[in-house]
Amino acid sequence: MENVKTVAWFSVPLALGIALMHNALVVSIVVAVVAYYATYRFIPLVGEVFIKHGRFGKDQLKHNTPIIAESMGLIAGCVYLAAMFLFIPVPFVPFFRDLQNPDGRLSGLHFLGLPTFPHDTLGQYLAGLLTLFSMLFLGFVDDVVDIRWRVKIWMPLFACIPLLMVYMVTYNVTHMVVPVPLRGFLYYAYMAALCIFATNAINIIAGMNGVEGVQCLVIGSALLLNSLYQIFTTQYQTTKEAHSISVYFLMPFLGVTIGYLRHNWYPARCFGGDTYVYFAGMTFAVVGILGRFTKTVVLFMFPQVFNFLYSCPQLFGFVECPRHRMPQLNTNTGLIEPTRVNLENTRTIGLTMIRILEFLQLADVKRDTNNKMISCNNLTLINLLLVKFGPTSEENATLRIGATQAG
Amino acid sequence: MENVKTVAWFSVPLALGIALMHNALVVSIVVAVVAYYATYRFIPLVGEVFIKHGRFGKDQLKHNTPIIAESMGLIAGCVYLAAMFLFIPVPFVPFFRDLQNPDGRLSGLHFLGLPTFPHDTLGQYLAGLLTLFSMLFLGFVDDVVDIRWRVKIWMPLFACIPLLMVYMVTYNVTHMVVPVPLRGFLYYAYMAALCIFATNAINIIAGMNGVEGVQCLVIGSALLLNSLYQIFTTQYQTTKEAHSISVYFLMPFLGVTIGYLRHNWYPARCFGGDTYVYFAGMTFAVVGILGRFTKTVVLFMFPQVFNFLYSCPQLFGFVECPRHRMPQLNTNTGLIEPTRVNLENTRTIGLTMIRILEFLQLADVKRDTNNKMISCNNLTLINLLLVKFGPTSEENATLRIGATQAG
Repeated sequence: MENVKTVAWFSVPLALGIALMHNALVVSIVVAVVAYYATYRFIPLVGEVFIKHGRFGKDQLKHNTPIIAESMGLIAGCVYLAAMFLFIPVPFVPFFRDLQNPDGRLSGLHFLGLPTFPHDTLGQYLAGLLTLFSMLFLGFVDDVVDIRWRVKIWMPLFACIPLLMVYMVTYNVTHMVVPVPLRGFLYYAYMAALCIFATNAINIIAGMNGVEGVQCLVIGSALLLNSLYQIFTTQYQTTKEAHSISVYFLMPFLGVTIGYLRHNWYPARCFGGDTYVYFAGMTFAVVGILGRFTKTVVLFMFPQVFNFLYSCPQLFGFVECPRHRMPQLNTNTGLIEPTRVNLENTRTIGLTMIRILEFLQLADVKRDTNNKMISCNNLTLINLLLVKFGPTSEENATLRIGATQAG
Repeated sequence: MENVKTVAWFSVPLALGIALMHNALVVSIVVAVVAYYATYRFIPLVGEVFIKHGRFGKDQLKHNTPIIAESMGLIAGCVYLAAMFLFIPVPFVPFFRDLQNPDGRLSGLHFLGLPTFPHDTLGQYLAGLLTLFSMLFLGFVDDVVDIRWRVKIWMPLFACIPLLMVYMVTYNVTHMVVPVPLRGFLYYAYMAALCIFATNAINIIAGMNGVEGVQCLVIGSALLLNSLYQIFTTQYQTTKEAHSISVYFLMPFLGVTIGYLRHNWYPARCFGGDTYVYFAGMTFAVVGILGRFTKTVVLFMFPQVFNFLYSCPQLFGFVECPRHRMPQLNTNTGLIEPTRVNLENTRTIGLTMIRILEFLQLADVKRDTNNKMISCNNLTLINLLLVKFGPTSEENATLRIGATQAG
């Protein structure tokens, strides 16, 4: 009851925003605040239910490995989608206002005197949400039944079909009329690859309290600031519109991320699960594609790109790859330490890779008395930071990732 | 591997259909066949994984209450949505063909000489799929964490927002320009109510092997035949287009339903769970709204309407309502018998309702020697049929429901 009351209170500024401003940006900010608050309040409530139904994990980096609700990205995702569903009509308010004052003019919407509803823009929203929903859904299914690694890496390909379809009919058809077949095809392949990369990239820097959320917070904020900057400086209407869509998608995303992060921060009282990382990763891909700044997205995800490249020797089997490569807790010091991988059975090609990384000062290798390589740190960004800056508390390790992302 | 091969074989006619016919209806039939086959093959595979992860139920109407995989509606739904994602571009093929032969004419698509892509139609598809996806998702979440009855009855309201939004901008704006506020509002309320009714209606005639599937098969087939009839007899282009959308949504739906039903039929080797019934119910609502024949949908769902009205005394608490009202197995005869509800603590208003039903020959009441009512059958269509036609085998009981639906 308490929650319902507070949510009701929050809806007052929402209503005010819609009624007084008719300004989609203001409404978006209000929606983001409500989404933050709803996520923050719902997670503990639903968490209990999830634990009761066996949807929990154990926190491996704590002394007593406490039981913690899993898949809480579901709450973040559901609140986000509910917020977006309610937000959909808002950017179209000027169109309806215009209908009633036919002397008003709306750039690009009037056609033969009768205003034409911007069905293409609405289609972009719907396709973006459909893609996000698919990914949230697949993430949750993965959490519940553990889809095999080889299958799930391709899931974003399936989820991004509606998005690419709408992209094709909105930009290609309208702007180029006859698309260049080969270049066109390569560009779609590139966008599909971005979706696959973005969804999986967040997932491989994970395993510490708050580490997924803090990455997403930094990337999302950077993309939001970039879009806001573009909106207020560009003189092209199409650029402005594309970046507006990006803002409308990112604002509530940051809201739910902060709400989630407050529970997932050290010491965590909830886990996001694959549900959260897939959903968040796909949000960046969707925003990049609809806002037409995919290169910026890749740029802002540089730590993820680095982590992926750095992990390649293990991911592609040149060096042994244990199921979990996250750091471990030293129960004596209470600090987090990097984990290591055994190199004794590694073949020459893998050893050469490690030697190159060592030369670049990117690997901490231990040798026996014969100068034979015995082990090195697991090749993830988290472990590398622990090697470079020494063991630390879990909270500090997460902050380091956040700082790297910001830097 | 065997499956992959067979699916590959099935994709040959699919490719042929697209390449040779350019006929969306033919492609839709082929997609439906592939969807049927995929559902039929995937359910046993995924079922094992689900059982391993604790997603199973016990079949209460069998002697040994065997363990059976739950939530298999998830497979039906995922295959359906995958099929629809791949199908989306097909109805728009004429538009792209037209682009390359600019002398060709497409009714309603040409505007100032340059063909305009039918973004509004695409928006309808996307909104319909988004609504279906939301419902499938909520159904699965409900299966996993048991959402409270009072919350979940409203879930379709949330899921149908994108659909109503697109309906508004497609039909209201284009056809009426200035909508009549009150009548307009009532119509949206009616459509939202249809979504809530359709999703929950299938759910309350459930609990026997195959009974959900057989209802959906009969309703879906009836709607499909109605739409096909309309397409081939109407002279209005808009009616034709609306019913075409309905056909494209229903065809693969019937495919996955048959695939699912082959496993769910007596003796069941899988359960659909709320995932299936919500998804199926929402499909009918979506089809009715996009095809603009909501009244026909309600008409074809007459047994569900009857069952709902018949259940009201129990649903609204005038008569005691146990958690499960499905029939029970008589272990001696091996037949299914109606379950009964105790009337001894029922207040006058509830007793009056039962008396009216008894007068209408719709309730089987037992009285003690003082002529006081002791018990009557649980007020569901399944129990009523068992009362009227006597106990029978589970398979026959399901067939009776199918026959009632067809009649």
